[in-house]
Amino acid sequence: MKTCATLTESLADDYRWMAQAIALARRGLYTTSPNPRVGCVIVDENQAKVGEGYHVQAGTPHAEVHALAMAAEKARNGTAYVTLEPCSHYGRTPPCADALVNAGVRRVVIAMTDPNPQVSGRGIAKLQQAGIQVSCDILAAEAAKLNRGFIKRMVTNKPYVTVKLAVSLDGKIALGNGVSQWITGPQARKNVQRHRAASCAVLTGTGTARTDNPSLLVRPEEAQFDHYPLPDIRQPLRVVVDRSNKLDPALQLFTDQHPTIQVVGDDLPVQSGQLPVATSGKHINLTELMLVLGARNLNEVWVEAGPALAGALLMSGEVDELIVYQAPKLLGNTAQSMVTLPAFSELSQAIDLVLVEQVQLGQDLKQTFKIKAF
Amino acid sequence: MKTCATLTESLADDYRWMAQAIALARRGLYTTSPNPRVGCVIVDENQAKVGEGYHVQAGTPHAEVHALAMAAEKARNGTAYVTLEPCSHYGRTPPCADALVNAGVRRVVIAMTDPNPQVSGRGIAKLQQAGIQVSCDILAAEAAKLNRGFIKRMVTNKPYVTVKLAVSLDGKIALGNGVSQWITGPQARKNVQRHRAASCAVLTGTGTARTDNPSLLVRPEEAQFDHYPLPDIRQPLRVVVDRSNKLDPALQLFTDQHPTIQVVGDDLPVQSGQLPVATSGKHINLTELMLVLGARNLNEVWVEAGPALAGALLMSGEVDELIVYQAPKLLGNTAQSMVTLPAFSELSQAIDLVLVEQVQLGQDLKQTFKIKAF
Repeated sequence: MKTCATLTESLADDYRWMAQAIALARRGLYTTSPNPRVGCVIVDENQAKVGEGYHVQAGTPHAEVHALAMAAEKARNGTAYVTLEPCSHYGRTPPCADALVNAGVRRVVIAMTDPNPQVSGRGIAKLQQAGIQVSCDILAAEAAKLNRGFIKRMVTNKPYVTVKLAVSLDGKIALGNGVSQWITGPQARKNVQRHRAASCAVLTGTGTARTDNPSLLVRPEEAQFDHYPLPDIRQPLRVVVDRSNKLDPALQLFTDQHPTIQVVGDDLPVQSGQLPVATSGKHINLTELMLVLGARNLNEVWVEAGPALAGALLMSGEVDELIVYQAPKLLGNTAQSMVTLPAFSELSQAIDLVLVEQVQLGQDLKQTFKIKAF
Repeated sequence: MKTCATLTESLADDYRWMAQAIALARRGLYTTSPNPRVGCVIVDENQAKVGEGYHVQAGTPHAEVHALAMAAEKARNGTAYVTLEPCSHYGRTPPCADALVNAGVRRVVIAMTDPNPQVSGRGIAKLQQAGIQVSCDILAAEAAKLNRGFIKRMVTNKPYVTVKLAVSLDGKIALGNGVSQWITGPQARKNVQRHRAASCAVLTGTGTARTDNPSLLVRPEEAQFDHYPLPDIRQPLRVVVDRSNKLDPALQLFTDQHPTIQVVGDDLPVQSGQLPVATSGKHINLTELMLVLGARNLNEVWVEAGPALAGALLMSGEVDELIVYQAPKLLGNTAQSMVTLPAFSELSQAIDLVLVEQVQLGQDLKQTFKIKAF
């Protein structure tokens, strides 16, 4: 009984400190990519916190390095809580596994192993070889959620794709004459800004680019960040699918000081700023597009597109998540439908979704769906 | 301080017993119309419940009569809790105010006064004239909610109108080829059955009648009533808007043993089973229709109609509530939109709604909206 009680107490501590490490990791939500968001907490033998840190930006120190620097000598014989398996290789920074060994920590608790199957376990092995006790799978699901883009890319070489649509109750994105600003309210739009900011890329199509001439950049005054770890906002890469290179080069996407990738068919002569991607008949092959974007180290792609590209992506099976901001309005049958899909003849052909989260934002509902496999 | 404490305690008792009376009233949800749902609890001087009852069906005793019969002599010097002001006139039953006076109750607590402005207050006056202490406005909003149809009809001569739509996430009610069974799941359909059962009439249009050939009756095995106070299900009156009398008389609505009212333009020769209503050009004038239905003592009208009639009703301003059962599916742009509305040129022309309730039914969401005044 004594042993059992002690074990339980220690586990509760593990969860408590790991939850703090995850909260720290979350502070890198907008800035770490292409790296994962990682947090680290170090406690001494008396369960006093002696160090903490999180990864801010690629090319700068990892979470463990920050935490070890804060803890200094107090790290010795302590326990390090890290939300992701410490790295074991020399990248732009030295291996964190070595740093933990050198600091003399007695135990390392890891939320989840490295998602890259070719690397996974090496950091743990290095720690264990140095006599450090290693525990895994503490709040693993919570840690994974924060890095779902990084994880998907490591495993599949493709980014995590979220399609966003702002619609009326009757599923319309604009009136018949094209008027669409604004269907949803300010709280929904603020939420969209934050999703944009957390994404590596914002993907759109020719229709939206032409009709709205959007910047697709993050407007910090609208996003109202509670915390932003860098002086300047990291803007997402804009990616516009323009299969036949028909867009006007005078559009805002191509003329402001931020980069935009124009995805064109690989059967066209390539020009500067363009990304040639294989086509399937008249359209860009969207699976190829995702592989190309994954190869560019883009973890999370946020899609703000019209019905045609949104529908094509949903049909391609390349969408992980659909977020619908639904306003309590009716626009009527002559308004524009939210997704262009083939003319189904049976209800079983419809795209099936699973509602995973729902929240009210002002007058609007934000509904988050996973896509059921076809 | 003593007085205050006593008062508070008494108020708490009042709320407690009135809540029980409202729960009793709710047992008549499916059967009292055209009468209101009313419940009554009688407690003696020691706060012991000595009688209770609810109104079951028009032409049978009122709630007070049931409760007084149960209490018998124990009602003397007791308190009666009634969810609606006791009647003071001879209808199909003698006045309940007289019955309460004759039983010798000392106090009567009333949730809300009679909604009919020409009757309101007379029952209270009769009680007070007999020396009975009367308290009002205890859980008045809760009591009113249960009789919103009766109240609206008393005040405006029109029924309370709820439009129901079962749609996909993209606001479609059927595929392009008309296939629509079933977009929503069994729990949503069970809920629809209960709404039908609680309504005095189910209203539909020619499109639905022709395409689906529905019965629009309550299927008890699908409704799964926890409690039903009568041996037989009271079926709602079916009302079908058929302005030009074009529907096939062989439709189920016209051939089963339950009554259906066929609403035709008053410029046509009237036939048996038809209700002539004034027209506005090519269509039935929906405000006139509601006045006619109100005159037929219909408290609650439940609309299961296609996009044309649903849209026309919404535009007419005659709709009190919109209930949308939303399934997590995408049917695409070629599918049929849920409401036919004029081609708006500005978003300010859209129909604005207020979400008042939301509940998950299986995989579907049931959203209840009030209509914002134009």
